[in-house]
Amino acid sequence: MSKKAIFPGSFDPFTKGHEDIVLRGLKIFDEVIIGIGHNSKKIRHFDVEKMAQLIQHNFLKFPNIKVIVYDELTANLAKKHGANYILRGLRNTTDFEYENSISQVNRNLNQEIETVFLITSPKYAAVNSSIIREIHKYGADISPFVPFKL
Amino acid sequence: MSKKAIFPGSFDPFTKGHEDIVLRGLKIFDEVIIGIGHNSKKIRHFDVEKMAQLIQHNFLKFPNIKVIVYDELTANLAKKHGANYILRGLRNTTDFEYENSISQVNRNLNQEIETVFLITSPKYAAVNSSIIREIHKYGADISPFVPFKL
Amino acid sequence: MSKKAIFPGSFDPFTKGHEDIVLRGLKIFDEVIIGIGHNSKKIRHFDVEKMAQLIQHNFLKFPNIKVIVYDELTANLAKKHGANYILRGLRNTTDFEYENSISQVNRNLNQEIETVFLITSPKYAAVNSSIIREIHKYGADISPFVPFKL
Amino acid sequence: MSKKAIFPGSFDPFTKGHEDIVLRGLKIFDEVIIGIGHNSKKIRHFDVEKMAQLIQHNFLKFPNIKVIVYDELTANLAKKHGANYILRGLRNTTDFEYENSISQVNRNLNQEIETVFLITSPKYAAVNSSIIREIHKYGADISPFVPFKL
Amino acid sequence: MSKKAIFPGSFDPFTKGHEDIVLRGLKIFDEVIIGIGHNSKKIRHFDVEKMAQLIQHNFLKFPNIKVIVYDELTANLAKKHGANYILRGLRNTTDFEYENSISQVNRNLNQEIETVFLITSPKYAAVNSSIIREIHKYGADISPFVPFKL
Amino acid sequence: MSKKAIFPGSFDPFTKGHEDIVLRGLKIFDEVIIGIGHNSKKIRHFDVEKMAQLIQHNFLKFPNIKVIVYDELTANLAKKHGANYILRGLRNTTDFEYENSISQVNRNLNQEIETVFLITSPKYAAVNSSIIREIHKYGADISPFVPFKL
Repeated sequence: MSKKAIFPGSFDPFTKGHEDIVLRGLKIFDEVIIGIGHNSKKIRHFDVEKMAQLIQHNFLKFPNIKVIVYDELTANLAKKHGANYILRGLRNTTDFEYENSISQVNRNLNQEIETVFLITSPKYAAVNSSIIREIHKYGADISPFVPFKL
Repeated sequence: MSKKAIFPGSFDPFTKGHEDIVLRGLKIFDEVIIGIGHNSKKIRHFDVEKMAQLIQHNFLKFPNIKVIVYDELTANLAKKHGANYILRGLRNTTDFEYENSISQVNRNLNQEIETVFLITSPKYAAVNSSIIREIHKYGADISPFVPFKL
Repeated sequence: MSKKAIFPGSFDPFTKGHEDIVLRGLKIFDEVIIGIGHNSKKIRHFDVEKMAQLIQHNFLKFPNIKVIVYDELTANLAKKHGANYILRGLRNTTDFEYENSISQVNRNLNQEIETVFLITSPKYAAVNSSIIREIHKYGADISPFVPFKL
Repeated sequence: MSKKAIFPGSFDPFTKGHEDIVLRGLKIFDEVIIGIGHNSKKIRHFDVEKMAQLIQHNFLKFPNIKVIVYDELTANLAKKHGANYILRGLRNTTDFEYENSISQVNRNLNQEIETVFLITSPKYAAVNSSIIREIHKYGADISPFVPFKL
Repeated sequence: MSKKAIFPGSFDPFTKGHEDIVLRGLKIFDEVIIGIGHNSKKIRHFDVEKMAQLIQHNFLKFPNIKVIVYDELTANLAKKHGANYILRGLRNTTDFEYENSISQVNRNLNQEIETVFLITSPKYAAVNSSIIREIHKYGADISPFVPFKL
Repeated sequence: MSKKAIFPGSFDPFTKGHEDIVLRGLKIFDEVIIGIGHNSKKIRHFDVEKMAQLIQHNFLKFPNIKVIVYDELTANLAKKHGANYILRGLRNTTDFEYENSISQVNRNLNQEIETVFLITSPKYAAVNSSIIREIHKYGADISPFVPFKL
């Protein structure tokens, strides 16, 4: 049976660290669905539809990477897409505690779901979307942190 | 002398993890006062008065558990109620760092106050109010995480 | 191509937490090789050969779980067995920091290797081999922590 | 019913941080039993019997503080002494992860046992027995860290 | 060459912990520039200009401590002032993870920049600006936490 | 006045991560003394005298880097050499908790001493001496981790 994983996040913006996890995830799963969690009430810095297109374009040569925007529980999204795995990157201990909680709750919501973790490669571990937004607001160059032109 | 403890929190909502700490706290203290910190400017997901009633009802058979809504410093609330203890649950290291700060400051504000910690039982440690609110917003079943019907 | 993972450890003893990771690992990999790292100079509490047999017997109905005793670098063991994955359980933040170091070094030693992490189920997260040995030395019952009779 | 707590440790040596926890523990419990875990195979820096005497002498004016040397599981020691509580100090997140494991296992061994934590006062949080031993080996003054003359 | 460091923060308010870091920073650097990051859209509890004056006045006898309000990237501010160092205090592990990210990104933005860390003195480590604001909102005395009258 | 720092450690072996901290330390201090703590009772994997020579040779072109082997408290070593600073690298949160303790105790032993921390560059943060020894025992190539030929 084909192994599908959801890689959920806000991706505001998608970073080189995210790209690293998706590509390494392809060594484990047959298909990775990048799920951009979005809700019309949340204010984003980067437009969600534009971000979805840029990510999709970034992985053009990978037919087994899909990008979707969703507004529901990740555990339900997974069920709907026949995905039994959630893929997550861990950068540090703060991430760990948060991801630990989320993964237990997801398993509670959907017994089929297994959350699989990869540790973000060291050179990308410092990069997070919130710092990139801050840099971008001040007009500085964010290209070292993002895999495509924004 | 009777040993009274304040168990402070937002309880938006009160979880099975909170219930676990309150019941275990009763083995240490003669009385536990569940203090729902609330401030008219803060926006809650669950109504504060309704939550207070549900918690009180949940512990109906425990005459030594009280529920109050308060809008002042926890250290002052304790003094007003003749409580020399603050009871807190620790779920993980992120909690620890936060609680460490709060407890030192409370001792500074009120020398009589001792903060006593219990480690949340593993099966409840992943449950936190913010994740439950998220699940509830999407209409999923939160009954595995909350000790009463919401 | 068949996906093989090494699950390395001292397993002195193998715990229910380890069993949890192995069984969940089977949902991700086609084969899991439990590698008991052992070195004649290290003093074990439980005999290594006996432990290997007990683990193997525990998974009798799983033809895709193998147990081996090894005395070399895990990265080399993986290469020798055609395994491109190392499977590890994470119980807490202390584990995380240690595993982070080991996984980066393993990738450095063998570029093909990807370390995949699962977070130990909460009910098993407190169980570790060193505490079990301590309990066993004092003659107390360790059966709640170990999946087979020792 | 009288509330008794065991305060277990190696106390090699007993520090001002330990003294802080014992004295604050007396505000919660009617009796605190300082249990020096010792095993004839373990090599100590400070003699265990001498340490027990010094601690006992340090708390001479507290009839509800006892000192014992023990060589068994803490959960059993507690049962034998009719103590339903284990008292522990938390200094930092590394302590937290360790204590979390131990306390879950103790509850497993003895359902009656509740482990109660106090956070070590900031001025003592850096002091640990292993650093004090190191300083003592080099003949430096350890009196700022230990409540009695060694 | 003169060694200048930027000590950046929101300082809403400036605390005794911040003062501790600045004074210890003077033992390392020839000049410390306290940079109050501010942005007209951010809502502060304490007025930014008033805070700048109070901090400057607090260090009147130190001609090598300057206070500025800025609204740009810290890495750029440093370049503009010929400062090759960023000075930061670490209170706990949560701080560490955050500061780790920020410092790597700053080095990426400006290769000349070195971030230098001091660990906050234990007696001040619990004090953080957000807790002080909370206390202040309820009209309690914040003078134990702030080096000047607010 | 010349600013001297001690960079203490076991350096068994000295790693590229250590080299990174020493070189960045030179941007802060006028002189860095690499102090190899050694005690005839401790068993090393790499000979201490040989290691001292290799490190010294590695920094031949830096007249302001010295290497010494010492067997006393670091706080005393600093005093003897007129060094008012201890330089330390932080790799992760486990390091942080340990270093926090050590630095407070050193300040207690010698009020003049200030411990200054740099965060290890990400590409070296996974490298630690204990993992390198393990790799070396199995005859694998450690040259990616050590700045000189061992």
